[in-house]
Amino acid sequence: MKFRRSERLIDMTHYLLIRPKELVPLTVFAERYGSAKSSISEDLGIIKETFEKQGIGTLQTVPGAAGGVKFISKVKQEEAQEFIEHLCKLMAEPDRLLPGGYLYMTDLIGNPHIVNEVGRLLASAFAGLEIDLIMTVATKGIPIAHAAASFLNVPVVIVRGDSKVTEGSTVSINYVSGSSKRIQTMVLSKRSLREGAKVLIVDDFMKAGGTINGMISLLEEFNATVAGIGVLVESEDAEERLVDNYVSLVKLTNVDYKIKQIEVVEGNYFSSNQSFLKEEES
Amino acid sequence: MKFRRSERLIDMTHYLLIRPKELVPLTVFAERYGSAKSSISEDLGIIKETFEKQGIGTLQTVPGAAGGVKFISKVKQEEAQEFIEHLCKLMAEPDRLLPGGYLYMTDLIGNPHIVNEVGRLLASAFAGLEIDLIMTVATKGIPIAHAAASFLNVPVVIVRGDSKVTEGSTVSINYVSGSSKRIQTMVLSKRSLREGAKVLIVDDFMKAGGTINGMISLLEEFNATVAGIGVLVESEDAEERLVDNYVSLVKLTNVDYKIKQIEVVEGNYFSSNQSFLKEEES
Repeated sequence: MKFRRSERLIDMTHYLLIRPKELVPLTVFAERYGSAKSSISEDLGIIKETFEKQGIGTLQTVPGAAGGVKFISKVKQEEAQEFIEHLCKLMAEPDRLLPGGYLYMTDLIGNPHIVNEVGRLLASAFAGLEIDLIMTVATKGIPIAHAAASFLNVPVVIVRGDSKVTEGSTVSINYVSGSSKRIQTMVLSKRSLREGAKVLIVDDFMKAGGTINGMISLLEEFNATVAGIGVLVESEDAEERLVDNYVSLVKLTNVDYKIKQIEVVEGNYFSSNQSFLKEEES
Repeated sequence: MKFRRSERLIDMTHYLLIRPKELVPLTVFAERYGSAKSSISEDLGIIKETFEKQGIGTLQTVPGAAGGVKFISKVKQEEAQEFIEHLCKLMAEPDRLLPGGYLYMTDLIGNPHIVNEVGRLLASAFAGLEIDLIMTVATKGIPIAHAAASFLNVPVVIVRGDSKVTEGSTVSINYVSGSSKRIQTMVLSKRSLREGAKVLIVDDFMKAGGTINGMISLLEEFNATVAGIGVLVESEDAEERLVDNYVSLVKLTNVDYKIKQIEVVEGNYFSSNQSFLKEEES
């Protein structure tokens, strides 16, 4: 089966997009299309240029016999800005307010477009770090963690509030929830995390940071380290922040149930994240 | 900014891949690239041909003023076969066996490659149906449901075992778990499902089908209907199957903890699913 350049470009684009951060040797493409390596190199040059121009990401070339090409998903600053503004508007809709000042976000976290874009932005923020896996806590963190994991090509482990027979033996810790000051339990399957792993913690919502602090303690039990912390929403309404170093997409600054008001602003995404795809690079 | 054909093909491929089942008017591309509609049509022809040849999916053209083009993710039968065989091998690894004859699958469901591929196969099986949303139950069904939802471009709603304050008002039902015959509760946020919705139920594991049956009862409370049922694993080891019509990727036929044996075979995916991308179509 012979492939024209146009067909190769389409198929290579798909091939690379579904394998972010995976090193693909040039011979894979050369064999796949029955083409010379020089043609494949040219194709990759065009793809890299277009990915950067269009804000899709970039291709990294690893030279040498064990070399190849790697797709790195990155987002342009303007594009991230636009999406975060859109998120702020969605979250400030007054009918999201629930009794007790809680915010209904289930529809947003159930929307695959939004979840994938949140995952892409978080992955882009941590693209420069060495990450072995993503940790999150059931339930609402799961879709976001999986979306980010797809772009970073790492597995996800899920911390639960109770142990399940299908998890095998587990490690559990007690932690103090930051806002309610209640003692809670967190459980992780023993075989889901290896010693020394570098872990990105991802969650949907952070108030005082008690849950995230709990995950950090759990990582210590496994002799694993925190590579980064990323959340969709942080709430300013916290007496005392237990976690310092994190990336947030949006920030709740004021929630007033009586007058049905929600104020949502940009999180610290742009101040904490220097890892954007620069226009000049293209 | 002018675009060459090669650049257009790369960018259009990405644009379409991240928007499955979304109707994209040709003018969107014509304006994006400053190109004539006739050139865009030619580009789309090449993309359609390559997508079909390479087992990525197909493009549907909707004619007329409100028309455009839609990417439909589909999988080739041989590719699905290969992946399912791979899954069977992974699942039959003896160290997955847990006391009580349970199977450790947490690592598989935490692997974004596997999860995305499972989602793609399930989405492909139900590609021909009208589906408004996907329903699953916390926790392990969530990644699979979201992966399928990404390919079908529909939202996900998550049923839980307990109600959470952040869900707002909820509807709850009691159901009998098929295997243990225990009475359990299932809760769904009231505003997450609209009346008359056509729902695809997705889960990681089905034994007797009690949980899925519970979800069906819950749908009745919302006057919603079941469009289909898809599971990653079914277990043959069920006295009485409560659910008839479903698609499964793999089937556990024999689990023996004493002699450390697990037998996993292909599910009913190929007998129940006629919606493959045919070689002849390309």
